[in-house]
Amino acid sequence: MINIDYQAIFHEVVDELAGVHDRGEVADYIPGLADVDPNKLGIHLTTIDNQQHSYGDFDERFSIQSISKVLTLTLAMEMIGGDNLWKRVGIEPSGSAFNSLVQLEYERGMPRNPFINAGAIVICDVLVSCLDNPKQDLLDFIRRISGNQTIDYCAKTAEMESETGFRNYALINLMRDFGNIHNDIETVLDLYFYSCSITMSCKELSETFMFLAAYGTNPMLNTVVVNPTRAQRINSIMQLCGFYDEAGEFSFRVGLPGKSGVGGGIIAVHPGRYSVAVWSPRLNKKGNSYKGMLILEGMTTKSQTSIF
Amino acid sequence: MINIDYQAIFHEVVDELAGVHDRGEVADYIPGLADVDPNKLGIHLTTIDNQQHSYGDFDERFSIQSISKVLTLTLAMEMIGGDNLWKRVGIEPSGSAFNSLVQLEYERGMPRNPFINAGAIVICDVLVSCLDNPKQDLLDFIRRISGNQTIDYCAKTAEMESETGFRNYALINLMRDFGNIHNDIETVLDLYFYSCSITMSCKELSETFMFLAAYGTNPMLNTVVVNPTRAQRINSIMQLCGFYDEAGEFSFRVGLPGKSGVGGGIIAVHPGRYSVAVWSPRLNKKGNSYKGMLILEGMTTKSQTSIF
Amino acid sequence: MINIDYQAIFHEVVDELAGVHDRGEVADYIPGLADVDPNKLGIHLTTIDNQQHSYGDFDERFSIQSISKVLTLTLAMEMIGGDNLWKRVGIEPSGSAFNSLVQLEYERGMPRNPFINAGAIVICDVLVSCLDNPKQDLLDFIRRISGNQTIDYCAKTAEMESETGFRNYALINLMRDFGNIHNDIETVLDLYFYSCSITMSCKELSETFMFLAAYGTNPMLNTVVVNPTRAQRINSIMQLCGFYDEAGEFSFRVGLPGKSGVGGGIIAVHPGRYSVAVWSPRLNKKGNSYKGMLILEGMTTKSQTSIF
Amino acid sequence: MINIDYQAIFHEVVDELAGVHDRGEVADYIPGLADVDPNKLGIHLTTIDNQQHSYGDFDERFSIQSISKVLTLTLAMEMIGGDNLWKRVGIEPSGSAFNSLVQLEYERGMPRNPFINAGAIVICDVLVSCLDNPKQDLLDFIRRISGNQTIDYCAKTAEMESETGFRNYALINLMRDFGNIHNDIETVLDLYFYSCSITMSCKELSETFMFLAAYGTNPMLNTVVVNPTRAQRINSIMQLCGFYDEAGEFSFRVGLPGKSGVGGGIIAVHPGRYSVAVWSPRLNKKGNSYKGMLILEGMTTKSQTSIF
Repeated sequence: MINIDYQAIFHEVVDELAGVHDRGEVADYIPGLADVDPNKLGIHLTTIDNQQHSYGDFDERFSIQSISKVLTLTLAMEMIGGDNLWKRVGIEPSGSAFNSLVQLEYERGMPRNPFINAGAIVICDVLVSCLDNPKQDLLDFIRRISGNQTIDYCAKTAEMESETGFRNYALINLMRDFGNIHNDIETVLDLYFYSCSITMSCKELSETFMFLAAYGTNPMLNTVVVNPTRAQRINSIMQLCGFYDEAGEFSFRVGLPGKSGVGGGIIAVHPGRYSVAVWSPRLNKKGNSYKGMLILEGMTTKSQTSIF
Repeated sequence: MINIDYQAIFHEVVDELAGVHDRGEVADYIPGLADVDPNKLGIHLTTIDNQQHSYGDFDERFSIQSISKVLTLTLAMEMIGGDNLWKRVGIEPSGSAFNSLVQLEYERGMPRNPFINAGAIVICDVLVSCLDNPKQDLLDFIRRISGNQTIDYCAKTAEMESETGFRNYALINLMRDFGNIHNDIETVLDLYFYSCSITMSCKELSETFMFLAAYGTNPMLNTVVVNPTRAQRINSIMQLCGFYDEAGEFSFRVGLPGKSGVGGGIIAVHPGRYSVAVWSPRLNKKGNSYKGMLILEGMTTKSQTSIF
Repeated sequence: MINIDYQAIFHEVVDELAGVHDRGEVADYIPGLADVDPNKLGIHLTTIDNQQHSYGDFDERFSIQSISKVLTLTLAMEMIGGDNLWKRVGIEPSGSAFNSLVQLEYERGMPRNPFINAGAIVICDVLVSCLDNPKQDLLDFIRRISGNQTIDYCAKTAEMESETGFRNYALINLMRDFGNIHNDIETVLDLYFYSCSITMSCKELSETFMFLAAYGTNPMLNTVVVNPTRAQRINSIMQLCGFYDEAGEFSFRVGLPGKSGVGGGIIAVHPGRYSVAVWSPRLNKKGNSYKGMLILEGMTTKSQTSIF
Repeated sequence: MINIDYQAIFHEVVDELAGVHDRGEVADYIPGLADVDPNKLGIHLTTIDNQQHSYGDFDERFSIQSISKVLTLTLAMEMIGGDNLWKRVGIEPSGSAFNSLVQLEYERGMPRNPFINAGAIVICDVLVSCLDNPKQDLLDFIRRISGNQTIDYCAKTAEMESETGFRNYALINLMRDFGNIHNDIETVLDLYFYSCSITMSCKELSETFMFLAAYGTNPMLNTVVVNPTRAQRINSIMQLCGFYDEAGEFSFRVGLPGKSGVGGGIIAVHPGRYSVAVWSPRLNKKGNSYKGMLILEGMTTKSQTSIF
């Protein structure tokens, strides 16, 4: 493997972006997100042979939000297997946000993929069915695959999500009407809101997601998380569905499987090479980190590490 | 690069599939497609260092249909550049077929990507605007990048497409109403129907698409088709949009950027490694080659060459 | 006014329909509806000069279900006036059931009319905002305009609706997300489910709705319910929106403003002439009484009392 | 019948509206419409006992546009009967314009009613199938029912509609794809564009539509146009579908069955009483005459002649 000085590249890219006006807006629908300093900027890349490259606020925790959907999916695949899972949630890109409800209606309560809210809620329903203590068990799983016992939920954020999450209540009730939710609505949404509230730093994210860069195994811990085929499949779903209505744009510009969150974080992996996390809180109109996407685009262009 | 005996893998995969009932149906909306022997099966893989691996009817020509959309896109990108092109057609997956017209309506005549019919028609409109003799110039381009002067249209197929293409007439008129078609409707559709009528063998397809496996340059001919970034972007669009409403399924199972046609052909590339074409005429319900997808899935699994 | 022997017409129509197989199905989503004898058949017509014409089970109470939406609308119009009301709910026909959620999404939480579930829920939200004791006050209003103190809710039915009403929970949460629900979701739905649970006989229904046949005033009681313009407007909304996706069919065949309920009841009025209620529990595929529509069609044809 | 001085009411209403700013815009998509003096204002009401009440430019011809859809429907009903007709076009309100294409797709090429463009095009297809000389035969029919041999098409308007009618071409091609168009597309659209180009004055319109006010027979000519049931059904369709996405609004405010055209004309009838036509070219955002609707609202309010 060629040694690339990603750290130098991060500095180059950030310098080049210095003159770019960050046109994004911080998510403000709950205080926990709205209060974040919009100028935070962190980057952390871990190669599969455990080289660490970082920049700025890489060590500060933030709300990972929808990035957690990859982790709940991974755990659900391990619990019941893909064959059972794909009867209840699809693996196709979702098209526009506008269509989300009509799609759910048209496909009779089966969400198009596990990374739109409806799909992640079904995944949480699966976990509630399988786990004795869903919230604790999910946390234990994440701590195990990251080798980091300090990762935790932010109860305050979870509570606020719950109070303003009317659209999620709409989605779960519609799916319940179609028979695709098997457990108590409040219990399922509680797990969902808590999973979104997890806080991690860029460094922690890149370490936690190493298994997707390394064919299912976290090489630092020598922990098998999933088998290689499953890792490939999760990456494929990230590639096609990880950025809502902007999956094409991210894939086109960055060329890596990735997943974003409204907290301004993005995780992306290059299978066989590295796992990288970026954090910049201002979001573009599609809800993805404005600067985060530019940084990853610059990084894969300069390092020539698009998977395409 | 590891030497993989793809030819042996092809035999293995085909043997394993011998017992699988081909549940697909041959496209029958025009005689040219309906008349094809449904049991045809061809595979051809060309590595970037020009190793050739083939199976069965790899040398027999068939109607490439929508696979041509990648070639018209490539030529249009070269003619007017991406920045101009992406104002008229998007790069996002399209969601369900059902939504195609409403999407076009909702996004005011801008197709979601260049691989759905509406998008490919806009691409043809761009070519009609830029080229002196669109049909001849497109053919010359394809002959040049493949190094094969015998590749040609099938006028009979093109005429039949035209006679039954009411939905395409609906799409182009709707886009014309929104101002996203600039030329005479018949001229644009004529180019569109002719481009779909091109016939190639698996071998010819894999050679023609080598530039996407080799960062924009056909290594056998030493011909630069596009620059490396553009090749990556075309691959990204194939990955996300190449299989209509089954892009996720193909990516999930096969793990390569690819494009299918209703003639039963599929082209797929592994950037840095190979270009592969499969032909099996029976289509699944989504309009993609039933056996073709299974063969490519088996091939990338056995050779461990998913890009993920 | 010509004296028409409606009672004789009812007998004629019922006789003629004796040979018609009732192809409908009784609503079975809650026990209270599923348990009803499907062969019940009641008709009652009251003229504005207080002639009474009846048939069969005209005196037996049944669950009026969505017919109550006319009564909640009437009360809400009286409470806050049309100008305020029409900012929160439209007066246009709703198109297909399939589109209900996408419509709500497209029009940003504003239901198309007060007779689809979403619209009736907004009406209940208005009543919760205006009334001290919404459930009791609504009941008092209905008792007052009908001159009948025995009309009441069926708590058992209301509770069962609540337990299975996931789609209504989906609708109210989506509207809450758009800011078109101002009160506690459970309180609003409680009023909604109770209003649907009201039981009345055909005779009671035709008396209660006399005000819409008589320009806003119940002539038997000499009670002004609404002013003449408001009565006309309620009738207009019934004409265009009273039968979900079958409003055109009912208007076309029967030619009267009317409203149906899944309990198998239909109320219809001829302004200046009469109010008529029918009850036959088997529903057609659109959710309206199969035989009830045929009876009213026969009645207005024979009596030549279509409003058109 | 009470004698109402409609003429005096017209003056009153117009006076009251003098201070109302006409916020509408003249249709400008073709020169024939765009060139009209926006301040034209004509009203003409004919009672069934042949009293004539008029105002302003009641005697000047204008393009009746979609008002012609009622006449083509009437002729098609006479040619093949309702039972055959309603297999190819529905009788339900259409919901929003936005949904028109998706509705056509969802209901597999069957338009929701004969007054949306798609439905009127199917009606024209029926006429082309039944008539020897469709354009001449339609004109003869209209001249016969109006007793007016001078009514004619405006070829110039028809040609211009054809040149800009891309959306209509989209609709007919989509329906052709679903098999709901049986004749040559150009022939059908030619009839459609010509029928929309007919010019009439308010006086001529109110006389032509008298048969719908008088149970199917033009009382001045003693000409039976359709039977009473058919007249009622046409009125019902006008009531529910005559104003596109504003049918509810017109019914709510005016309380009469009616039909509008983008030329600024509106025809409305009160069954048993009168037929009335208004012309004011400025259109509101829904494409209906802004002032025309206000005048009819004032007229039915003052004369208390809402059908509700």
